Amino acid sequence: MESWKILKREPVLDLSPFLKVEKHTVALPDGQVIENWPWIISPDFVNIVVITAEGDYLVFRQTKYSIKGTTLALAGGYIEPGEEPLAAAKRELLEETGYAAEHWENLGDFAVDGNRGNGIAHFFLAREARPVAEPDADDLEEQEMLRLSRAEVEAAVARGAFKVLPWQTAMALALLRW
Amino acid sequence: MESWKILKREPVLDLSPFLKVEKHTVALPDGQVIENWPWIISPDFVNIVVITAEGDYLVFRQTKYSIKGTTLALAGGYIEPGEEPLAAAKRELLEETGYAAEHWENLGDFAVDGNRGNGIAHFFLAREARPVAEPDADDLEEQEMLRLSRAEVEAAVARGAFKVLPWQTAMALALLRW
Repeated sequence: MESWKILKREPVLDLSPFLKVEKHTVALPDGQVIENWPWIISPDFVNIVVITAEGDYLVFRQTKYSIKGTTLALAGGYIEPGEEPLAAAKRELLEETGYAAEHWENLGDFAVDGNRGNGIAHFFLAREARPVAEPDADDLEEQEMLRLSRAEVEAAVARGAFKVLPWQTAMALALLRW
Repeated sequence: MESWKILKREPVLDLSPFLKVEKHTVALPDGQVIENWPWIISPDFVNIVVITAEGDYLVFRQTKYSIKGTTLALAGGYIEPGEEPLAAAKRELLEETGYAAEHWENLGDFAVDGNRGNGIAHFFLAREARPVAEPDADDLEEQEMLRLSRAEVEAAVARGAFKVLPWQTAMALALLRW
């Protein structure tokens, strides 16, 4: 199978650093040409499933602009320019929770949108996490940190309590892995 | 916890029907006002995990514009205006595979982006699926249909072979559910 070829890219929106949109002209393997294919440029991001040294899952309950009411949430955020995904995950975990973790493993890297890009989600499982500092998050949302048992996390995932797609994904992958 | 209030919305890009972008002015619970908050408007979509009457998982291998090489993929697509998510899932399954399924259950509904909207992903598990028609998909990608065993799907999810976020999510949730 052959991938599509990009023939032309035209910027149509610039809300840097968080969102840019382009229109692409694309050639399909059969010679067909598609114009005005939307392409979303957004920073790659990390999300972290955190298991403490005591075996609890460290999550947040918070409001989010896209969500009605509150949602369970994971630590995470955008990757800085030039930063490695794992370094970003360690930085975000420390900033948002004050925890550092001994064992890190990658849970996979996924395109947010198969057609339009919109950044890559990098997921990590951090185990043997312990508090080493005060949280120092710059997040705008109100939030509280919770410790959940594995059974509570399984029930939360089963009822879709992580209402934002990448958080639900990372937690489901962690449950399958560990 | 209080949700944010929207004070003003300004259209900044219109690539209807698939993508619109707005800038919002938003009031936080503490009175802080944020301007130029990006908001992505995109149709809601469905993805379907299909298990045949023989117990195989029906998936695709295909190219996608956002992906290098090929990826494993699920049936799915955008919901039509006014269409219920379950009806969209049944329509997409029939169009893309020619299969109809006896048992349907919802695997959850998730905001693609917690900050910027970008549509809702509705996931379904369809069991006891049987071929009833020829596939009649309007998808532009080259693709082949595959039947995988549960062990093959577990291995594929573990190595991140569904390279697009909602597909990996839906399959992980199906493995946890069934």
